[in-house]
Amino acid sequence: MPRTKPSLEQLAIGIDIGGTGTKFGIVDRVGNLLFSSEMSTRNHSEVEGFIDELHANLSPFIEQAGGVGRMKGIGLGAPNGNYYSGTIEYAPNLPWKGIIPLAKLVENKFKLPVVLTNDANAAALGEMMYGAAQGMNDFIMITLGTGVGSGIVANGKLIYGHDGFAGELGHTIIIPGGRFHQGTGKKGSLESYASATGVRLTTLELLAKSKTPSSLRDIPADQVDSKKVYDAAMEGDDLAKEIFEYTGKILGMALANFVMFSSPEAIILFGGLTKAGDLLLKPTREHMEDNLIQVFQNKVKILVSHLKESDAAILGASALVWEIK
Amino acid sequence: MPRTKPSLEQLAIGIDIGGTGTKFGIVDRVGNLLFSSEMSTRNHSEVEGFIDELHANLSPFIEQAGGVGRMKGIGLGAPNGNYYSGTIEYAPNLPWKGIIPLAKLVENKFKLPVVLTNDANAAALGEMMYGAAQGMNDFIMITLGTGVGSGIVANGKLIYGHDGFAGELGHTIIIPGGRFHQGTGKKGSLESYASATGVRLTTLELLAKSKTPSSLRDIPADQVDSKKVYDAAMEGDDLAKEIFEYTGKILGMALANFVMFSSPEAIILFGGLTKAGDLLLKPTREHMEDNLIQVFQNKVKILVSHLKESDAAILGASALVWEIK
Repeated sequence: MPRTKPSLEQLAIGIDIGGTGTKFGIVDRVGNLLFSSEMSTRNHSEVEGFIDELHANLSPFIEQAGGVGRMKGIGLGAPNGNYYSGTIEYAPNLPWKGIIPLAKLVENKFKLPVVLTNDANAAALGEMMYGAAQGMNDFIMITLGTGVGSGIVANGKLIYGHDGFAGELGHTIIIPGGRFHQGTGKKGSLESYASATGVRLTTLELLAKSKTPSSLRDIPADQVDSKKVYDAAMEGDDLAKEIFEYTGKILGMALANFVMFSSPEAIILFGGLTKAGDLLLKPTREHMEDNLIQVFQNKVKILVSHLKESDAAILGASALVWEIK
Repeated sequence: MPRTKPSLEQLAIGIDIGGTGTKFGIVDRVGNLLFSSEMSTRNHSEVEGFIDELHANLSPFIEQAGGVGRMKGIGLGAPNGNYYSGTIEYAPNLPWKGIIPLAKLVENKFKLPVVLTNDANAAALGEMMYGAAQGMNDFIMITLGTGVGSGIVANGKLIYGHDGFAGELGHTIIIPGGRFHQGTGKKGSLESYASATGVRLTTLELLAKSKTPSSLRDIPADQVDSKKVYDAAMEGDDLAKEIFEYTGKILGMALANFVMFSSPEAIILFGGLTKAGDLLLKPTREHMEDNLIQVFQNKVKILVSHLKESDAAILGASALVWEIK
């Protein structure tokens, strides 16, 4: 007599690969994170060894969740991840150089369908399915972390572009001839200013240029980071406040340009820098409005993601799985 | 005995409303322009009088083409035209101020379904159906005329945004704090530089600032226009060539930003300024590539529309009709 298998709800595996660490977990259809953990990316100079460890780490979770048969597939978010080809291409922050057929390698190891996209696109999908962008057909997700990433949704769909690489808003030029970007060799990109790295550089520049007294002057230059600038600003330090004003000015100008491109209902901000709250958001809103032509003014919401940062990346990656036909 | 009506192919009416003149015509499914003509926009201070004349002008064409029964509908392209609401909103170049329910007014007069969008979106649809963008799912159309317009196609669809106004790339800020734009009151927008108006202003600025000998110095300031700069450049005038270099530098930088947004297969340029050919295109290509991060380099075609300029606007507007369900 054949055993009838109970009809169990399908689950998705979400994996977010960052330059330092990789987060992974198992998610159900409504966004509950059933299991999650993390491991080092940086320690693996070979991608094969990385995938072996990932498989070893995930296998017990998969068993506990009901086995591989319950998994609909794996969603991968990774810097420079290409949705069409399933490859990672020339990712400056990852240990593996050149073009890596990541989706194929993971598929072969796990024997499950795999979908890859870049980490910010995955985050945008996560916001659309479980976060601040639920019900929106047109929005832009901006991640303000060590770098600046972005995912753009228009007509209810992620924009991948003809080659799968669309949505690199962190690399758009905002100040022509401006600050040099170590990773790209370009000058004046948004990422050079509106990232944690950018805030650090702005701080060092302002400390050198201005004579304003500041508690930031007591911190050794190599220990200056956006968290310390935030703390100083919260204690009323004028220079620290000026740093967020300046960052918001450039971010706001950039957001105005993005609005005039795709006229989103909202821009959703995510990542470490958003912890600065109104210190950053107030000047950002103000300068966005200042640079918008009339037809766009006072229409576009700037929202901060309310997904838990540690979970959001996994949720976003897992959201890719539900798009598998 | 009932007469059986011959099954005649449906036709579309295309109307392109510009600040000075309005072009209109009747187009078949494959883009043949069966009839076309034009009339003044500017002479009509009241939109009702404008629509009356438009109807009077089009009626004989409609009759000749087989009557109103053969018409599937009317496509309207107009500055600040809103696809969702069918209204023109605060169009600075049109004689009618505020919010005009244009689609409704035209529908009531012609008793035909009407679709409205802005002129550059219509041009993009025209390129996709009949022009350089045939078969493309991801491209950007930029019109370089008196102003700079744009239409963006991603995932095979025009991006209208949440409010119907997406694709105002001419108003994106390229040079923060740069040239003042009379119409918008904003500084440093693409349109302030990469339009016929912008080329004229660049010329006047350079003539004042530089000491380079130039035949352009013999032209009275109020008669300087982009055509005269082109003629001078073709005769080897160094200052005139510098003007196109500068225009191409700014346009190229802007195009790089647009590429990093939606990663199009091609950017299609259209309008008077494209007549400058390689004088403008060479520096534009060069500076676009210079500002692109590696993953986008040497991938994106810059094409000049090969549709006849006088027909393209009508074809584009008519293309809207085939989307009517």
